[in-house]
Amino acid sequence: MSSIEPSKSQYAQIADLLRSRIADGTYVKGSALPSEPELAAELRVSRVTINKAVGLLRATGLVKVKRGLGTYVATLSKIDRHASERFAVRDRGAGAGDVEIRSLGLQPRTDYGYVGPIGAPSAVAEALGIMAGTQTLLRSRALFADDEPTQLADSYYLWDMAKDSVLVQPDVGAGGSYARLADLGAAPVRFTEAVTVRMPDAAEQRKLDLDSGQPVFEIIHVAYDAADRPVSVTVHVMSGHLWTLHYAWADRVSPS
Amino acid sequence: MSSIEPSKSQYAQIADLLRSRIADGTYVKGSALPSEPELAAELRVSRVTINKAVGLLRATGLVKVKRGLGTYVATLSKIDRHASERFAVRDRGAGAGDVEIRSLGLQPRTDYGYVGPIGAPSAVAEALGIMAGTQTLLRSRALFADDEPTQLADSYYLWDMAKDSVLVQPDVGAGGSYARLADLGAAPVRFTEAVTVRMPDAAEQRKLDLDSGQPVFEIIHVAYDAADRPVSVTVHVMSGHLWTLHYAWADRVSPS
Repeated sequence: MSSIEPSKSQYAQIADLLRSRIADGTYVKGSALPSEPELAAELRVSRVTINKAVGLLRATGLVKVKRGLGTYVATLSKIDRHASERFAVRDRGAGAGDVEIRSLGLQPRTDYGYVGPIGAPSAVAEALGIMAGTQTLLRSRALFADDEPTQLADSYYLWDMAKDSVLVQPDVGAGGSYARLADLGAAPVRFTEAVTVRMPDAAEQRKLDLDSGQPVFEIIHVAYDAADRPVSVTVHVMSGHLWTLHYAWADRVSPS
Repeated sequence: MSSIEPSKSQYAQIADLLRSRIADGTYVKGSALPSEPELAAELRVSRVTINKAVGLLRATGLVKVKRGLGTYVATLSKIDRHASERFAVRDRGAGAGDVEIRSLGLQPRTDYGYVGPIGAPSAVAEALGIMAGTQTLLRSRALFADDEPTQLADSYYLWDMAKDSVLVQPDVGAGGSYARLADLGAAPVRFTEAVTVRMPDAAEQRKLDLDSGQPVFEIIHVAYDAADRPVSVTVHVMSGHLWTLHYAWADRVSPS
């Protein structure tokens, strides 16, 4: 620990050390961290200091507490989500949600929750250009990578458009729901996303297996068809520490 | 309080009530909230419950503790940041950072920090296609709206490109730094952003006047010129509760 910065608190320095041991594989992903007494003895600091250092790693999702079992090195690293590329895969029969996960060599999984009619929440109704409470089709899912939850996604469709289609069933087949909208003559061609960050509510924290103090991204994703009609809205609630969101665009003014 | 949901904890219900009082103007922006004993007496709950309810509002930035003075209703609401529009204003002589603030009727202000040569941090160097530690020009600023800090922005430029230009001075004139890059024959025409969320470090928390438990957005913004050279990188650290990030794009596959 010769490279310690004198201005850093002791627990921040210990956190740096533990971080480097995770990065270099001294502590293997998915394995248990040494116990706090063991670390305190090895590093000759108090258990309080070790506990605060481990707290820093927990907040960033590098380690995870399994209740009654101890503290484990997290198995998932950051997942890159390229907004403008992920929906372009449906012409190859892939779903947008699987792309990022498979590119990391991980196994995607979708757990379907409620799929059926529901009154549109106000933010969704506003995006769809309908009155709040108007009946829509909700498709609610939890998405996983190697059995770790990564995000919750609630997609809303105009009821009259979706009600007689396969969209009312959980599994909608190759290409995902946007391919099915294309079958219905409402292929999405343009998208908007509004990104905020907040602390999760209790249900989200449980479903996403988040440590306390870990924020979530909330993305409101709207798809428009060639007639510029909003044809679906998805509310993504994503574990903040797991994702990097990538966007790209060209300028709208000509270079001078 | 007749519309209280039975499944919600008491303090979450109190938080909802306080939230609605802020929304309807019962509690005016910038004014002090009633004290916790006053609220406890009025609402006939314990001070602990009031304290937890106010804690929820603090985490979302709706109220702010001024040390020694009490709890105040925050003056700033969410600021909409439209990525693809904000840089298009420079042909009208405006800077990207001012647009969102003025559209809310607020007064933008920039405090310049260090402006001068610095070795590129690794993430910046990677984006600029240079070796980490290579000398770049850093322009470090803190941005405000009506004297409230909203974000920290550190922009990096290739040293050889920028060193003899006005970019080495804090104020670069009308149109901002991208107009100056255009003057240098390196007008940005394409942009990428990588968005993550994390807890702030102690210095960021102080500079952004964040309550404990409030996360920040970190955006790495890269500008490319017409020759597809990366010509600047800006690292934005933004108060998470203050911003909604908006992105828009058209699909890359033809609609079927």
